[in-house]
Amino acid sequence: MNSDEFRRQGHMLIDFIADYHSNIEQYPVLSRVKPGYLRQLLPPSAPYEAEPIEEIMKDIQTHIIPGITHWQHPSYFAYFPCSSSTAGILGELLAAGFGVVGFNWEASPAATELETIVMDWFGEMLSLPKPYLFSGGGGGVIMGTTCEAFIVMLVAARDQKLAEIGKDKIGKLVVYCSDQTHCALQKAAKVVGIRPGNVRAVATTRAAAFALSPDSLESAVLADVEMGWVPLFLCATIGTTSTTAVDPLKPLCHVAKEYGMWVHVDAAYGGSACICPEFRHVIDGVEGADSFSLNAHKWFFTTLDCCCLWVKNPDALKRSLSTNPEYLRNQASDSGGVIDYKDWQLTLSRRFRSLKLWMVLRSYGVANLRSFLRGHVAMAKAFEKLVAGDDRFEVVVPRRFAMVCFRMTRTTPSDEGANNLMNKKLLERVNGSGRVFMTHALVGGIYLLRFAVGSTLTEAEHVMEAWKVIQEHADAIQGDYKHLY
Amino acid sequence: MNSDEFRRQGHMLIDFIADYHSNIEQYPVLSRVKPGYLRQLLPPSAPYEAEPIEEIMKDIQTHIIPGITHWQHPSYFAYFPCSSSTAGILGELLAAGFGVVGFNWEASPAATELETIVMDWFGEMLSLPKPYLFSGGGGGVIMGTTCEAFIVMLVAARDQKLAEIGKDKIGKLVVYCSDQTHCALQKAAKVVGIRPGNVRAVATTRAAAFALSPDSLESAVLADVEMGWVPLFLCATIGTTSTTAVDPLKPLCHVAKEYGMWVHVDAAYGGSACICPEFRHVIDGVEGADSFSLNAHKWFFTTLDCCCLWVKNPDALKRSLSTNPEYLRNQASDSGGVIDYKDWQLTLSRRFRSLKLWMVLRSYGVANLRSFLRGHVAMAKAFEKLVAGDDRFEVVVPRRFAMVCFRMTRTTPSDEGANNLMNKKLLERVNGSGRVFMTHALVGGIYLLRFAVGSTLTEAEHVMEAWKVIQEHADAIQGDYKHLY
Repeated sequence: MNSDEFRRQGHMLIDFIADYHSNIEQYPVLSRVKPGYLRQLLPPSAPYEAEPIEEIMKDIQTHIIPGITHWQHPSYFAYFPCSSSTAGILGELLAAGFGVVGFNWEASPAATELETIVMDWFGEMLSLPKPYLFSGGGGGVIMGTTCEAFIVMLVAARDQKLAEIGKDKIGKLVVYCSDQTHCALQKAAKVVGIRPGNVRAVATTRAAAFALSPDSLESAVLADVEMGWVPLFLCATIGTTSTTAVDPLKPLCHVAKEYGMWVHVDAAYGGSACICPEFRHVIDGVEGADSFSLNAHKWFFTTLDCCCLWVKNPDALKRSLSTNPEYLRNQASDSGGVIDYKDWQLTLSRRFRSLKLWMVLRSYGVANLRSFLRGHVAMAKAFEKLVAGDDRFEVVVPRRFAMVCFRMTRTTPSDEGANNLMNKKLLERVNGSGRVFMTHALVGGIYLLRFAVGSTLTEAEHVMEAWKVIQEHADAIQGDYKHLY
Repeated sequence: MNSDEFRRQGHMLIDFIADYHSNIEQYPVLSRVKPGYLRQLLPPSAPYEAEPIEEIMKDIQTHIIPGITHWQHPSYFAYFPCSSSTAGILGELLAAGFGVVGFNWEASPAATELETIVMDWFGEMLSLPKPYLFSGGGGGVIMGTTCEAFIVMLVAARDQKLAEIGKDKIGKLVVYCSDQTHCALQKAAKVVGIRPGNVRAVATTRAAAFALSPDSLESAVLADVEMGWVPLFLCATIGTTSTTAVDPLKPLCHVAKEYGMWVHVDAAYGGSACICPEFRHVIDGVEGADSFSLNAHKWFFTTLDCCCLWVKNPDALKRSLSTNPEYLRNQASDSGGVIDYKDWQLTLSRRFRSLKLWMVLRSYGVANLRSFLRGHVAMAKAFEKLVAGDDRFEVVVPRRFAMVCFRMTRTTPSDEGANNLMNKKLLERVNGSGRVFMTHALVGGIYLLRFAVGSTLTEAEHVMEAWKVIQEHADAIQGDYKHLY
């Protein structure tokens, strides 16, 4: 680690990344390589002697970039965005440059303290109720992903409940969610030892825009309680993966609390929008929940990974997750006057992630951040209008944020199978063009296309262009599917 | 995300980090701030308007750096190192710059394929038995930390065992380790629903250099089996946290396999050394285990986080951790011909971590990497000699890698309490000097000081200087503790 060499290579890499972003539109959004392509291009073993950075960068350009699906491409509308920014990338760089491991306060006080501060800042921007903030007795922590947050919340809730009902009753515990909840919840429940059969994915309907109905929840809970099961946990979602549905927090919390459940609000995607007053209502009722999380790497410009989790009762986490081996003991921790984040999460070691969130908040400020999100929403609105104006298409569910769920539709309802196949073909063609990348979902038997706006580089023209590509392929598809018309 | 602005700020950040590393010796290794220092320095809320990068960098210099415990300081000898390098930092930067999320193959084929390739490269460098490599039917995956690897292995082993003995028998399962195993194992066991009382931390002795004895293990297992418990899992460690003890894999695997246990080898610290032929013997017997992990961010220059895990039977992971929601389905995954790493780990989203490991392997090559590690070992050897040459000190356990466990000792064995207190005071004084940072452990009733060499910037002179600081404070301590002499 020679400082001159770091400088030389670092400047080279910065220029490489700047050029990559400048030229990104020349690449197909979805990678076109075939499985196994890279093993044929790279040597079978690591080099014995050092190789110059120039050689490595050449390989990155010729071998790696063709195998990349460009999440930062302005014509990337797939999954949810993984939104990037100058501040986010450079915050990650700076964290790597400092190379600190902030598992406890002493291991780098700034890492812990900055995290508590920015989590309070961000919580305030979202108008989270005071009890979720450090200043109100709760607090926030930055994890990698929502999957980790799910596991942590489930462990805390599980141990709290088992302390009440008996340690051998883990087989009795039941977790509730909707059939639209992210699959990570089922996986997390399995990880913590909840039987897969004890996760109730309550059915939603298109009529209710795929939101979890409090009445359906209550029926499911009642039936379980009658059978001797023990309600443990409810996960409500603000912006589901398939359609960005919003579960109604107030009445759901009401039901859950009646049966002594922990309520977690998964706002991985939709949460960020709550910094705009006109969206804040989607989390009305959050005051009745126990924990709330969002992924700042989805729609808040921090780059992966940055899952922000707030809890009202950090002690519940600490009771389940604390470790106190002698080799980690120190005066500050022993004093009880500091936060040791290792006890709030699954892992011991942790990167200095608050740095990038802080840099994003300061580099752009509340005003710009709101306007970035509003810009994405406006583009999605414009796309929605284009879809609605073409009678070969329909918008499947009302748009809530910056994603439009739509499909081609020409067949009678009894012919949904053919309709779904047609949309699947349309998606394959559009993605195969390399000019746009979208993904799909299947809800209520409907195969729909998801157009998720949120890539930092996306401008109105890219949305227009995407719509043109979709229309072109719809024209072609209509030829193939004439018999359906 | 303006490309010119990214370039301008990026160059600034690169220079900032280069300067930080050049000037790092001017800072006290262990931060001297008091709890709560940062909240007094930062505003109570996020700014409404954007702030210039110059302003942010000024605050980083004046507010953040004083609160950093400098893990990259050449006089950092605490915990285990979190070793950095130009290639590691820039690899992390490049991953952030691409901003891809490689949860499945399609989401960025290069991210998945490069990971399989470098894990085979690295596995070969360690002379891991073929069945751990993709080329031998197993395979490797990069996680954040060993804590995640523990959880994943335990879940896979748990589900495999419960499929044999019945799903309601989770309360019967027992996990084995030594009293030197990292506390993350106990935490992981708790997370996956193993009762805390069912983790057997088999006692070790100073006479056996704190290694887990196969006989003691077998006695513990036998006693459990007699009582109707079900042996599930053994964690053997190569380089324990307190003293870098090495558990003897061959006989331990022999015992474990007799009782149908999954054996995981936690070589978080010691594993990297196995790229040097003279160290490879420490994992002799690994062919009898099921999984093996090491932290490349500890002693392999990748920066945090980069835990490399190899397993013989990836299907066991996939059976427990696979999810297949419609919104993630795609042709490549459906074909079964590609790896979707989401099914090998806890989380869905994952950073492009293989990039930095690849850049480290290529930028330095096997030859240099070996010589870096040997350099650290040589420095630790030199330090050990200095300790052994001063009759106020003793080396507590034989040095195995690049860490020396030592203490001041002048009292009779019956006076261990006072001896421990004296060493605690010595550590406080040395760390308080700001010139060196070490940490401690307590094993077999002995409070010892850990001198872990491995920071990338450490040179022989820093080791000499550290020894001088320790000696100075030993002189002072001797004054305070005259009554013990």
